[in-house]
Amino acid sequence: MTALWRRAAAELTGTAALVTTVVGSGIMAQRLSSDGAVQLLANSTATVFGLAVLIAVFGPISGAHFNPVVSLADWWLGRKPQRTGLTFAEVGVYCLAQVTGAIFGAIVANLMFDLTAVSFSHTTRTGAHLWLAEAVATTGLVVVIVSLIRHGRTAVIPAAVGAYIGAAYWFTSSTSFANPAVTIGRAFTDTYAGISPAGIPGFVAAQGIGLMTALALIAVLQPATHTESAATTPRA
Amino acid sequence: MTALWRRAAAELTGTAALVTTVVGSGIMAQRLSSDGAVQLLANSTATVFGLAVLIAVFGPISGAHFNPVVSLADWWLGRKPQRTGLTFAEVGVYCLAQVTGAIFGAIVANLMFDLTAVSFSHTTRTGAHLWLAEAVATTGLVVVIVSLIRHGRTAVIPAAVGAYIGAAYWFTSSTSFANPAVTIGRAFTDTYAGISPAGIPGFVAAQGIGLMTALALIAVLQPATHTESAATTPRA
Amino acid sequence: MTALWRRAAAELTGTAALVTTVVGSGIMAQRLSSDGAVQLLANSTATVFGLAVLIAVFGPISGAHFNPVVSLADWWLGRKPQRTGLTFAEVGVYCLAQVTGAIFGAIVANLMFDLTAVSFSHTTRTGAHLWLAEAVATTGLVVVIVSLIRHGRTAVIPAAVGAYIGAAYWFTSSTSFANPAVTIGRAFTDTYAGISPAGIPGFVAAQGIGLMTALALIAVLQPATHTESAATTPRA
Amino acid sequence: MTALWRRAAAELTGTAALVTTVVGSGIMAQRLSSDGAVQLLANSTATVFGLAVLIAVFGPISGAHFNPVVSLADWWLGRKPQRTGLTFAEVGVYCLAQVTGAIFGAIVANLMFDLTAVSFSHTTRTGAHLWLAEAVATTGLVVVIVSLIRHGRTAVIPAAVGAYIGAAYWFTSSTSFANPAVTIGRAFTDTYAGISPAGIPGFVAAQGIGLMTALALIAVLQPATHTESAATTPRA
Repeated sequence: MTALWRRAAAELTGTAALVTTVVGSGIMAQRLSSDGAVQLLANSTATVFGLAVLIAVFGPISGAHFNPVVSLADWWLGRKPQRTGLTFAEVGVYCLAQVTGAIFGAIVANLMFDLTAVSFSHTTRTGAHLWLAEAVATTGLVVVIVSLIRHGRTAVIPAAVGAYIGAAYWFTSSTSFANPAVTIGRAFTDTYAGISPAGIPGFVAAQGIGLMTALALIAVLQPATHTESAATTPRA
Repeated sequence: MTALWRRAAAELTGTAALVTTVVGSGIMAQRLSSDGAVQLLANSTATVFGLAVLIAVFGPISGAHFNPVVSLADWWLGRKPQRTGLTFAEVGVYCLAQVTGAIFGAIVANLMFDLTAVSFSHTTRTGAHLWLAEAVATTGLVVVIVSLIRHGRTAVIPAAVGAYIGAAYWFTSSTSFANPAVTIGRAFTDTYAGISPAGIPGFVAAQGIGLMTALALIAVLQPATHTESAATTPRA
Repeated sequence: MTALWRRAAAELTGTAALVTTVVGSGIMAQRLSSDGAVQLLANSTATVFGLAVLIAVFGPISGAHFNPVVSLADWWLGRKPQRTGLTFAEVGVYCLAQVTGAIFGAIVANLMFDLTAVSFSHTTRTGAHLWLAEAVATTGLVVVIVSLIRHGRTAVIPAAVGAYIGAAYWFTSSTSFANPAVTIGRAFTDTYAGISPAGIPGFVAAQGIGLMTALALIAVLQPATHTESAATTPRA
Repeated sequence: MTALWRRAAAELTGTAALVTTVVGSGIMAQRLSSDGAVQLLANSTATVFGLAVLIAVFGPISGAHFNPVVSLADWWLGRKPQRTGLTFAEVGVYCLAQVTGAIFGAIVANLMFDLTAVSFSHTTRTGAHLWLAEAVATTGLVVVIVSLIRHGRTAVIPAAVGAYIGAAYWFTSSTSFANPAVTIGRAFTDTYAGISPAGIPGFVAAQGIGLMTALALIAVLQPATHTESAATTPRA
């Protein structure tokens, strides 16, 4: 097992790079086009590519969660019959690294596009239908990751998670944040991918509901087998 | 073999997610752009990604048919020399789960985009050239799936089926529904991806003709070998 | 070795499907958008997906050449030290099947889009810079296929050839036909992807020059090893 | 080990093809659309496909660096405990081949699009935020390549590097040149992808800083193990 500090560094770096990808490509898309679907296509395509690569690069070090929801699922599913996955304390370290990285990633994107390092977003993202969308998006994300691990298909997780998010950008009304750390990071940029800080609690709560829905669905569709040694940590 | 109820649950969930992807991404695309090709590019790209992931996730549970045509092909090709694949009764259960899931998926998409849960489509899709397109699209889909199974290349089926549909969205005039359950589900949304209920019979009939054409083509190009144990169920 | 008639049937069917993909997606793109780059992006994306799937499906039967240039390369590189690959007579059968399939594929696309079965293209495609582009595109195609076979990476050939053509659509001024059979087939549709019959000889000649350039380049960069058993037939 | 002259020929040919892809697809995109994001989407998509294929084709011959920064990383990381990777003299040969190929590739693209063989770019690309972007882009590129090699995942390097660049085109303000040889080559075309010669020194310096940042990050996140035999040469 890699040392915790190194895993935390990987989570921080990877989450930063993920948010830089999301925010930066959003700025570029918005500057270059006035067609909303072209903007989102550029933004989602860049995220698909970036996320897949980041999971492949950091998966063997930290599991490449980049997402508190995934770290919590890892802890929950790894409690028994014998402890595998993260401990609850490690989840705390992961989440801290993820949130820190997400904020740092937004700042890097802002600076690369010659903007103020931090300016909070004014994009309002609230409403029951957006929260439903976040719950659905998060449910899907966790089901995809856990299912592929339980099928022993960890090698395809980078591509599959990238592809899932690429679809979810489009099939949800919220463009699928599906990640509390990234949601917080995206509040630090007043650009295309931003979210007003006031929108964070609703999104994070919906993502939490999505996590619980996913765990219920997994219990029905993908019950664990006794021989599993690692619950959800992708070792892609 | 996974219990039938669990396989049916997987077919229902997977088909729901597929229709949510198709319908939801269509709504998003239509709201964001007035360029018809940009809309279809967004819609088809989201479907490629979503479908590939869904097959990877549900394939090991139920075969990830999500499509009565595929379940029928599985039954037909698995009749002899020794029974493999689905029984005819199981095909019935699969189809019921698929249609139920498809309708549910359309409703989820509608709700995520703040629309009425159900509103039947007014998009007329009839005409000999569209039926030819559906027959061609369905022929291709079945040939792709069965060929890859017979070549022992099940690991690439998720990506290949996604890619096939991504091409067929564009090379057919009907945008390649190629799936009776999804066709029915898409009648439950009066948005981009909808089909007026009156158009369903023609599409389903054409898809049936496509299935028969595919089985004939397979008999010529990809005759079964005796050592095959499972006919068409992808275990991706 | 699969019987010649079955391999020819696979070449005919596969080349037909390839031309249906190219022509059909071109018609769809042109009808839906007035932005030339969006049209070509749709056309090229559909071709990438379709071509990759077709090679995966038909590769184990016939080698999935779909292209007289590839069949000729297979014959040339397989002459010695011991005969492998196609005989010269088989190349003739392959080419006939490919050209027949290509024409048939254009007709299917025309009919699916409610057009006359055959109408010859009026799109003039002549000029030294287009011929240079076709020579470059064909050189690259043959180098890619032969290199991957010689590296023993046949499993990636479907994706790699699809990706190569996806790039070559854009980096060549001719949109990379790179295939005499497909060039002939595309004369049979007066739509987006068409080529006026008068343009065929120049394109085919340039493609022949590309083949010879590729064989020279391969001799320098990728000399055959003695242990090779099949020269260029992808068994993907 | 392949002879140096053959490896140099592979680097020259591959870098030429890479620049032809970048420059040619840029010209095509600019001619076909007036939407800036559609242009960049076409340009980046073609580059993703082209780059991935080129690495798969030339990786087994020369390592498919196509980039002085990658060759330098290979030399640096391969110094000890026992010499692996390139010698410093070989790095010189590689760089010469890469720069020569890059210029040649720009000329081929110009000629295919019926332009003067060489015309220097007038596109000014200077400024601290662009240099920050180049440093970030280059850091990421080197981290991705070295990490995947150290994880033993060389088979995915072609796709991963293509995907990385596809993301970096969008998340950086500079569209991610990340390659001194390609930067020089792109000065030889006064089209979409060009860079004014005056912009070269700043870009190359920033890329050098990115290389050093990457090597520091790798020392923290991906320290070498003693059993490694080849440092960074992808044998994809």
